[in-house]
Amino acid sequence: MTERSLGQSTGKSFKKLVNDPFDAVDEALQGFVAAHSGLLAFAEPRVVVRRVPGRDKVGLVIGGGSGHEPAFLGYVGSGIADAAACGNIFASPPANVVLSAIRAASFGRGVLMAYGNYAGDVMNFGLAAQMAEPEGIEVREIRITDDVASAPRSEVGKRRGIAGDIVVFKCAGAAAEQGMSLAEVERLAIKANAATHSMGVALSGCEVPGAGRPTFELPEGEIEIGMGVHGEPGIRRGPLQPADEIAQILVDAIVSDMDGKQGGEVALMVNGLGSTAYLDQYILYRGARRILEAAGFKVTRSYVGEFITSLEMAGASVTVTALDDELRSLLDAPAKAPAFSA
Amino acid sequence: MTERSLGQSTGKSFKKLVNDPFDAVDEALQGFVAAHSGLLAFAEPRVVVRRVPGRDKVGLVIGGGSGHEPAFLGYVGSGIADAAACGNIFASPPANVVLSAIRAASFGRGVLMAYGNYAGDVMNFGLAAQMAEPEGIEVREIRITDDVASAPRSEVGKRRGIAGDIVVFKCAGAAAEQGMSLAEVERLAIKANAATHSMGVALSGCEVPGAGRPTFELPEGEIEIGMGVHGEPGIRRGPLQPADEIAQILVDAIVSDMDGKQGGEVALMVNGLGSTAYLDQYILYRGARRILEAAGFKVTRSYVGEFITSLEMAGASVTVTALDDELRSLLDAPAKAPAFSA
Repeated sequence: MTERSLGQSTGKSFKKLVNDPFDAVDEALQGFVAAHSGLLAFAEPRVVVRRVPGRDKVGLVIGGGSGHEPAFLGYVGSGIADAAACGNIFASPPANVVLSAIRAASFGRGVLMAYGNYAGDVMNFGLAAQMAEPEGIEVREIRITDDVASAPRSEVGKRRGIAGDIVVFKCAGAAAEQGMSLAEVERLAIKANAATHSMGVALSGCEVPGAGRPTFELPEGEIEIGMGVHGEPGIRRGPLQPADEIAQILVDAIVSDMDGKQGGEVALMVNGLGSTAYLDQYILYRGARRILEAAGFKVTRSYVGEFITSLEMAGASVTVTALDDELRSLLDAPAKAPAFSA
Repeated sequence: MTERSLGQSTGKSFKKLVNDPFDAVDEALQGFVAAHSGLLAFAEPRVVVRRVPGRDKVGLVIGGGSGHEPAFLGYVGSGIADAAACGNIFASPPANVVLSAIRAASFGRGVLMAYGNYAGDVMNFGLAAQMAEPEGIEVREIRITDDVASAPRSEVGKRRGIAGDIVVFKCAGAAAEQGMSLAEVERLAIKANAATHSMGVALSGCEVPGAGRPTFELPEGEIEIGMGVHGEPGIRRGPLQPADEIAQILVDAIVSDMDGKQGGEVALMVNGLGSTAYLDQYILYRGARRILEAAGFKVTRSYVGEFITSLEMAGASVTVTALDDELRSLLDAPAKAPAFSA
């Protein structure tokens, strides 16, 4: 391990509590599973499953790159996911790891894979589904596309998945837990994804352990609206603004993407990206909620905290899900996972 | 609001999602209570209570400065605290605010106040207890002193309270919820505090909204062991080390403070101070757990996350609580608060 790897040698790197950077993911996963050993177990080093496996149900596989903790393994638990496939930091898990997760989540009624819509994940999860087919496991997939800043509405299939992941995991997981068929679980996951709209703001980059430099840099006093959780370009860079003005920008973009749904019931999530204080997250939540209420929405479910992070990135995202009886009931259904209880 | 207050004008300030810094605490509290309106309500602007008040039980009042979110109001809920008195950022709530919290938590069987041992809190909570006396409310108090770095063992009464607060809140809250007498709740709070030992490491300062500069500065590549959550001096400043070495320093200090308890059952908490990634927190947890296990301890309860922060400070603390049947059962007792469910 070089000194550089601990962030000691450059003025721009972050200070980290890691050992050898090459071991960071596995050590963090080991710590995570040990800390939540009542709920979680390893199927293999990069596949985390429920300690008590599901029975006679559709399996839900989630996953993606590491560095987003408590995502993804924090959403493995009763009422949510059956298995999480974990990649290197900000890198998709390889297809063979996803395949192991599929096998671990296969209880004879098929498997739904839910993951954010990133090229690497699309390729590896897709490959794994093909590899599972000869084993007689029926696999379907939902690619989560809640980030309205990542592509225009006419190209919704190109959008990325961010904090809306959690809403889709919860709804699909609840449906699976209730014994629904694979087709029905898939339908509800698609419905939850379509009902969910997010946009974020980045205030800083973060640093992959060992990299010695941030993933990207934002000049002093600047923010980037719509930036992706791995530093993918956003839609506007500009000066830091008051929280309520940022809330207005994010909510306006989200609401304009939800046309026809104004005035309805919604769930509101504010997700901290890593180093934005809870104080700030709740101020942003307050602003977003007031703007939604002024626009005639009724906020009946709220989630504030760090649900899917980007290491120590500063910033936050706002997620709005249009609720009906079906989705509300899935969100409220009992669940017990390290990062989500209901 | 000046531009400076948003952190735009100095190279050393943090970027924050706030509006007018003078409104930050009240806006965050409003957001917090709105987001958790099923569990929380305001008794007055700086006093947060359970939405459904307790009945015929000892009341538990907690509180302290703001900026430590989700502490303190996140621990108001069934099975934990009845009311939280909230001060300005890093400043004790005034005595009249604490008095309001006492009144809101008074159900005829007395009130226990539990708070970290800081001079301002000691003064204001103490004054409030005196003010409550003529109203016929019996008030006792426990000053939490888990930070082993803040004073030698021979002067334990001078030690500060840090993440061990949460352990004491939970044990006292469970005892109160089970209908125990004020004397018994107090006894168990004292026992939980005596069984709980913490030490932290700071990797950066943080910034009070509007201050325009960090609370303190740590040179590039340096950390401070034992530093307090408001920047109180620690016991050693030195170069950033690998996580396992830091875990060793923290656990060694904790264990040497627990003599006679080696080999016993313990709860282990790793608390992120604000901007240290979950990845790092779980690596630190893994290291601390392995060291404890090598020393013959059995870790049976684990808590990892941001339980009591210092805005966006980087760093973490390790807390070890020696468990017996009584304390374990109090930790495990049902609870539902925004920041703690059991």
